[in-house]
Amino acid sequence: MSPDSPNANPLDLAAKKAVLRLCTYGLYVVSCAHEGETNAFTANWLTQVSFEPPLIALSVENVSISLGLIERSGLFTVCPLRDDQRELAGLLGRSKAKAGDKLAHLPHHTSPRGLPLLDEGALGYVECRVAGKMAAGDSTLFVGEVVGAGLAADGAPLTMGAAGFRHSG
Amino acid sequence: MSPDSPNANPLDLAAKKAVLRLCTYGLYVVSCAHEGETNAFTANWLTQVSFEPPLIALSVENVSISLGLIERSGLFTVCPLRDDQRELAGLLGRSKAKAGDKLAHLPHHTSPRGLPLLDEGALGYVECRVAGKMAAGDSTLFVGEVVGAGLAADGAPLTMGAAGFRHSG
Repeated sequence: MSPDSPNANPLDLAAKKAVLRLCTYGLYVVSCAHEGETNAFTANWLTQVSFEPPLIALSVENVSISLGLIERSGLFTVCPLRDDQRELAGLLGRSKAKAGDKLAHLPHHTSPRGLPLLDEGALGYVECRVAGKMAAGDSTLFVGEVVGAGLAADGAPLTMGAAGFRHSG
Repeated sequence: MSPDSPNANPLDLAAKKAVLRLCTYGLYVVSCAHEGETNAFTANWLTQVSFEPPLIALSVENVSISLGLIERSGLFTVCPLRDDQRELAGLLGRSKAKAGDKLAHLPHHTSPRGLPLLDEGALGYVECRVAGKMAAGDSTLFVGEVVGAGLAADGAPLTMGAAGFRHSG
């Protein structure tokens, strides 16, 4: 069979999972808001994708409440978590549909563009304005231009590996 | 001024750089090939973006030779580097335009779909078929579906932090 034949090389699912789990991720709080509704969730599937202009790509699950908020407002924040914020990462990792209003129990203020930022929160933030989006399987991939930024605290970032979390494969 | 006024909150460039440098990355070899021309380069701006189907987003600089190879073949591989492969990461981090044929000096074989894989190489590979692409500033963002995978070696992955490299901000 030719190398491009669809059935030439069936995907080795165990190897696929093992290799994808070798990818390295940080842990971030992503927040969003639209017309008074707000949410914040833990994310790891994001990366910078351009220096000029500064762009971040963020994957958001299609079933999430946040997807609609980001689509309608065209805005999201990304906040790298501090290495001692594993518990917060776990708390915000639950979906709003199951956990209810997670921000109700977490003191927060608003970013210059009106997005929630945790008071006890993360090392800093960037505000991103959606510049593009693309369907991506069970998720939607947003590309956001960094339009605002602020540093909040000194510290080292929390990583998926250090937290012992797994969300890839 | 309203929060959405373009001039309401000018971007703090120092904070933008500092926050983006708090993002956590792994280090990967990405390879590509088209009609006999091959290349491999070090990448860190990539992330899984979907479980089902398994999709990876990869940012590729618009000035790179690899961009055209990936666009024309619709294929790329991603290979997580091992934690002792810092030197290889540095070597493959140079552009083909400046460094010449990097693969000429590195023993390699071909993946099932005809892409170069280093013999002394990385912890494993996934072959990705381009499923979408999007302009992203100075780069192009590809979304590739994982269609092939293989494990090569045991070991821990190399991270940008451990390597002391910086490519964000």
